[in-house]
Amino acid sequence: MTAADPPASAAGSVLAIDIGGTKFAAGLVDVSGRVLAAEQVATPPGANAGTLWKTLLALVEPLVANGPGLGVGVGCGGPMRWPDGVVSPLNMPGWRDFPLRAALEERFPGVPVRVHNDAICLAVAEHWRGAGQGVADMLGMVVSTGVGGGLILGDRLISGPTGNAGHIGHVVVDPAGPECGCGGHGCLEAVSRGPALAAWAIRQGWIPGAATSGRPEASRLHPVDARESLPPAPSDPSHEAGDAGYEEAGTATARRLAADAAAGDEIALRAMTRAGRALGTAIASTTHLCDLDLVTIGGGLSQAGPLLFTPLEEALRAHARMPFSRRLRVVPASLGRRAGLIGAAALVLAPGPYWTAP
Amino acid sequence: MTAADPPASAAGSVLAIDIGGTKFAAGLVDVSGRVLAAEQVATPPGANAGTLWKTLLALVEPLVANGPGLGVGVGCGGPMRWPDGVVSPLNMPGWRDFPLRAALEERFPGVPVRVHNDAICLAVAEHWRGAGQGVADMLGMVVSTGVGGGLILGDRLISGPTGNAGHIGHVVVDPAGPECGCGGHGCLEAVSRGPALAAWAIRQGWIPGAATSGRPEASRLHPVDARESLPPAPSDPSHEAGDAGYEEAGTATARRLAADAAAGDEIALRAMTRAGRALGTAIASTTHLCDLDLVTIGGGLSQAGPLLFTPLEEALRAHARMPFSRRLRVVPASLGRRAGLIGAAALVLAPGPYWTAP
Repeated sequence: MTAADPPASAAGSVLAIDIGGTKFAAGLVDVSGRVLAAEQVATPPGANAGTLWKTLLALVEPLVANGPGLGVGVGCGGPMRWPDGVVSPLNMPGWRDFPLRAALEERFPGVPVRVHNDAICLAVAEHWRGAGQGVADMLGMVVSTGVGGGLILGDRLISGPTGNAGHIGHVVVDPAGPECGCGGHGCLEAVSRGPALAAWAIRQGWIPGAATSGRPEASRLHPVDARESLPPAPSDPSHEAGDAGYEEAGTATARRLAADAAAGDEIALRAMTRAGRALGTAIASTTHLCDLDLVTIGGGLSQAGPLLFTPLEEALRAHARMPFSRRLRVVPASLGRRAGLIGAAALVLAPGPYWTAP
Repeated sequence: MTAADPPASAAGSVLAIDIGGTKFAAGLVDVSGRVLAAEQVATPPGANAGTLWKTLLALVEPLVANGPGLGVGVGCGGPMRWPDGVVSPLNMPGWRDFPLRAALEERFPGVPVRVHNDAICLAVAEHWRGAGQGVADMLGMVVSTGVGGGLILGDRLISGPTGNAGHIGHVVVDPAGPECGCGGHGCLEAVSRGPALAAWAIRQGWIPGAATSGRPEASRLHPVDARESLPPAPSDPSHEAGDAGYEEAGTATARRLAADAAAGDEIALRAMTRAGRALGTAIASTTHLCDLDLVTIGGGLSQAGPLLFTPLEEALRAHARMPFSRRLRVVPASLGRRAGLIGAAALVLAPGPYWTAP
């Protein structure tokens, strides 16, 4: 669609917004979870608060020519003060304590405006209209630049008093493990987020792309030379930030790692195994605490398929041995790149289960 | 009280029952959480299903001379089929798939009979009338022969679809850690339950009681001799069972370990530090998942005070570094030995928050 072509059905839909460090996305989503229209724009790098806000407004205005419909739902990178929607996204230094919810309420008076963590919105989407439909007790995960999640227990989102429940990325999988961007160490995210995984592989001697460019042995034969021939840091901007993000973008190196693993690169395979095992271990801990039926996994790394899911299942089955925890299923998320918009919409369209603000 | 002296206020109370591998306890509990009368009897060792049932009836009959009051609440060692109350307590081989809830319903027709996991009842008690009163999001833990817990989120018990939520004892604290009675390895319980801790200390050369009997150096000077002078296994019967129990009894060796640590025994101190660190690590993972305000810790080992709580806090603060997880407080449980009865009573007296059966 274009600005000149707003959908006639806007009145039966909500304006959904998905805000991240690499892109802003917005769309109209109806009660069936269908995305009627969507637009996106690159997040202006280094922009100040005003520029970020204007960028967002310019993105959404064409969609709301007929009004915002039933309300506005927003998923945004954390941290944030919830449910106030005062946001300080790690990868957007221009917004620190930015009153996103209040600003949107002022722009769209008379309709509900609700803001939640982006990983929470992905989990909500999978429960509402994705792979978790009909499952009462589940964790929706994303494994990408960061590792995050959202807990649904008894068919209801568990937000927690500060909106931070579901942070599986900071479940400790190895107390002797690497430092994490959160300040702790041994967190799942410190091991399994895409950039950490790629960095680990590079330290082991992996040459990105070697396995898929006719030099499959290079990484094993000349690990030191291989390291020296690489650019000084991955091009992923969030790699430098040292903490989570959940966008598909920014994981180019991790995607290459998965491709090399698929092509048989030994170090890349070990890296995927390492990530999968850490995921399986954290998921076992989570189901022992929360008695789950299902975990869905989305995000860039989840697209690696069996390379990730096989070691994940092995670790999960080794640790989840109690009768009640054996029933847990782990499946890929089903909604893809528009899950963030769909989950944001559910905050407004299905507030009973999903808008659990105090 | 005696059988000839039933309390006049039975009508305003419930019959509460706490069933474990070393003792059966029963009492009348009123809506304020006061235990009006209580009796207990040793669990008959090796008894068959009929003898166990008759033992239970003989215990409760004197208490219910004026009727069971408002109903019957039961905490029982797991596993069980919940909410059916078909129990197979690990330390009571005589009951396998025993229909405890149905049997009690037949004995006490016309009033609600509710059965839940014993660790869940301890958590419920602390939230209802103990150290967690007024806190909406908490984990109630017990660290004793086993390590267990119950989750309260949004002022409501999280049972999970099978009644097994809250199993913090099987959060993985070290993927390279010791085997656990559950069949997994590296579980919190495998490290921190009293008998595992004592066994670890003995393998390091600890002589139980040496530090408190004028031979404080013995364990360090002659570790091999010390091991050989010990009986072949601790006297704790549940040590052999290889899995959890939550009773105060059966942790004599662990209590001696705490006493020796308090007296300065180096190995005993290291053992308490090891347990505390594992607890702090698992609690950090839990609050990242569940966004908690409070953890209460009861059970025999929790009475070790700073010997346990200081390393626990150190590990917790090292791992729980995100702004939202720093607020978590960890405190001793406050209700003591009658917590099991008080929590069982709450299943009947406060079903809104605590009887969350599907």
